[in-house]
Amino acid sequence: MKAILIIADGLGGRPTDVAGKTCLEAAHKPNLDELACRGATGLVDPIGPGIRPGSDTAHLSLLGYDPHEFYTGRGVFECLGMGMAVGPGDVCFRANFATVERTGGALKLLDRRAGRIAGGQVDLARALNGIRLVDEPGIAVEFLPSTQHRGAFILRGEGLSWRVGETDPHEVGAMVPDAHPLQWDDTAARRTATAVNEFTRKCVQVLETHPVNRTRVKEGKPQANILLLRGASRLPHLEPIQAMYGVRGAVIAGGALYRGVGLACGMERLDAPGATGGVDTDLHSKAKTALLALERLDYVFLHVKGTDNAAHDRDARAKVAFIERLDGELFGRLREGIDWKTTHLAFTGDHTTPIDFGDHTAEPVPVLFAGPDVLPDRSAGFSEREAAQGGLGRFSGRVLPMLLNYNNWNPKFGS
Amino acid sequence: MKAILIIADGLGGRPTDVAGKTCLEAAHKPNLDELACRGATGLVDPIGPGIRPGSDTAHLSLLGYDPHEFYTGRGVFECLGMGMAVGPGDVCFRANFATVERTGGALKLLDRRAGRIAGGQVDLARALNGIRLVDEPGIAVEFLPSTQHRGAFILRGEGLSWRVGETDPHEVGAMVPDAHPLQWDDTAARRTATAVNEFTRKCVQVLETHPVNRTRVKEGKPQANILLLRGASRLPHLEPIQAMYGVRGAVIAGGALYRGVGLACGMERLDAPGATGGVDTDLHSKAKTALLALERLDYVFLHVKGTDNAAHDRDARAKVAFIERLDGELFGRLREGIDWKTTHLAFTGDHTTPIDFGDHTAEPVPVLFAGPDVLPDRSAGFSEREAAQGGLGRFSGRVLPMLLNYNNWNPKFGS
Repeated sequence: MKAILIIADGLGGRPTDVAGKTCLEAAHKPNLDELACRGATGLVDPIGPGIRPGSDTAHLSLLGYDPHEFYTGRGVFECLGMGMAVGPGDVCFRANFATVERTGGALKLLDRRAGRIAGGQVDLARALNGIRLVDEPGIAVEFLPSTQHRGAFILRGEGLSWRVGETDPHEVGAMVPDAHPLQWDDTAARRTATAVNEFTRKCVQVLETHPVNRTRVKEGKPQANILLLRGASRLPHLEPIQAMYGVRGAVIAGGALYRGVGLACGMERLDAPGATGGVDTDLHSKAKTALLALERLDYVFLHVKGTDNAAHDRDARAKVAFIERLDGELFGRLREGIDWKTTHLAFTGDHTTPIDFGDHTAEPVPVLFAGPDVLPDRSAGFSEREAAQGGLGRFSGRVLPMLLNYNNWNPKFGS
Repeated sequence: MKAILIIADGLGGRPTDVAGKTCLEAAHKPNLDELACRGATGLVDPIGPGIRPGSDTAHLSLLGYDPHEFYTGRGVFECLGMGMAVGPGDVCFRANFATVERTGGALKLLDRRAGRIAGGQVDLARALNGIRLVDEPGIAVEFLPSTQHRGAFILRGEGLSWRVGETDPHEVGAMVPDAHPLQWDDTAARRTATAVNEFTRKCVQVLETHPVNRTRVKEGKPQANILLLRGASRLPHLEPIQAMYGVRGAVIAGGALYRGVGLACGMERLDAPGATGGVDTDLHSKAKTALLALERLDYVFLHVKGTDNAAHDRDARAKVAFIERLDGELFGRLREGIDWKTTHLAFTGDHTTPIDFGDHTAEPVPVLFAGPDVLPDRSAGFSEREAAQGGLGRFSGRVLPMLLNYNNWNPKFGS
């Protein structure tokens, strides 16, 4: 038996998306409709009713891990997804280059993305990785840049804690705050905050004199003269899927976050050529990579991000177009390529991102299961409204465990 | 954006209510039916499937607070709802005047409501508030009477605990028990029980010689010669709605309990003239007060009690009539007065109170959401049976967070 879970980020919508219809309702999607006819649909609250999900917490929950228990922050998943080795005591952050100016003893934020710097990040990273911290003994730093201003950062050493605040002031014109322990009597968090603050001071010294920034100044571009840190987190103690279900699988995702969540659950990482984590991603390539993986592995988790990107841009047309491309290029290919006698498929979103609002909201998301052991319901298509009448009803999270169950892989609780 | 939540106490019913129909099904309610057609319906388990709710626990859960975590007892909500100031260390009780006779060293209950005393309660309260406790040092008492025999009582001082039993024997002819700590090794609870028992002894001494009771004896009425205490509880640590969602709202309720729950969640209290907390309440006035409040505040929680009162009286006719009045006088007015471009509305009950049983039961309750961002379902009206087919499916509690989400007010969990 084989299983494939597909999550389209921010899939859900509202009737205000496209003149009384959601983007999913407005899209022409014959393949998804056919799968819904053949299978069963329902509504899933990614975390719980009325809980507005982040993408990280929603994915943990859909994969079967309670985010209230396991979630500490987004940084660790970004680090893992970028290929960094994360140890049990490490504190991980999301990091981004920004532009600050010195004013008195403080640092004032001028550009949160350092002009979306494109070039020189690896040289800057090399300089940052040379920083030695001395205020607290035995703490090492590691920074890895990803796209543009973005990257991931790790503090390593004994006695550190993820319970520290961020150094990102979020607003241009605001001063860069010190990192603070979330509780003052938390020794490990104080030690960590001290290290973060020393790093911040030293990173500005290192970056503002760096040749890359001298060149940027000459070219009239904002300097990348600070690294802002947020999403402090640690490796969660997730029981690997293989240990629980005895099966091996892979994650296919253009976005580092999603790869990171998959890796944290014990999936292997497969890179589809041309997967970008955006609306321009190569869906043919992702479908092909998934089908190839299913020849070798038990299950695949495939993530697409375009739906959410389009909705964050409040671009209904782009969201509808991406759903239609998803239907043709991904689900069309999967419908042909999957052995439906031995494979179960699940499709859902990790949250609703309505066009009007342009950010995540807490409505439930439609979900679809298909395959030989799925009891078909009366669904005539796949949309929020159809799924609201679907035979699976409404439930919270845990779509992957429900999918793997159709393959009779789930451990028995009790006897 | 604006939001309004309406809860009709004990709204749900059973087919035995009115010859195969629930009271909600038997009632003529064109306004509610129209709202259901326009919006979406579903079933809500106020706390969880098969959990038989109290009104206090159900309201906490519907407002988004897990009663398993936060509920200690009803007293604190009664105290808050009556306008008493409750501090973090205070122990709150529901209190009621009763009639006892001395028999040996014990107190035998003759009338649990002291003949539904109507007059003199304020004088009796003044005498009770003069009582000084000495068995345990540093404990003060405060009693505030409400209607008839009812009132609320607070013990104040260091080192007290809500974990004490009640002094209400509940049955006529039974002896008034001492208050006991729920666990014998709980020092604070023992100190509290000692104070309660000293108060009970002294209150009988003070009341039996009081002029109000001398007059009652002359008039052949049962004396109000004891104050029975139950529902020991403390102020719950509820994160205020304003802190979580950044919005300000008010509670409009005739019953002290419901005002108290709203106040405990950080709502302001608005009194509608003529609101009685019964079937005779002025619904025009409550509608008007709510619409006025929505001009100034972000949201309103409006509670009506008549549905539950009628059902506790096993009076199907009265429950149907109250639902019909609710439909015309409250929902008719709201339909006209609300700006539907910018307002979301939710309507539900806090539990089922079937006519035959005359008390709360654990069936789910129909719930209705309407407003510009609610995805309409196929509901053709509002009732238990219609809602069972509704597009919102079935979920537990959390109706207020789901309502506020339509206004994009909910905090994101994760990123």
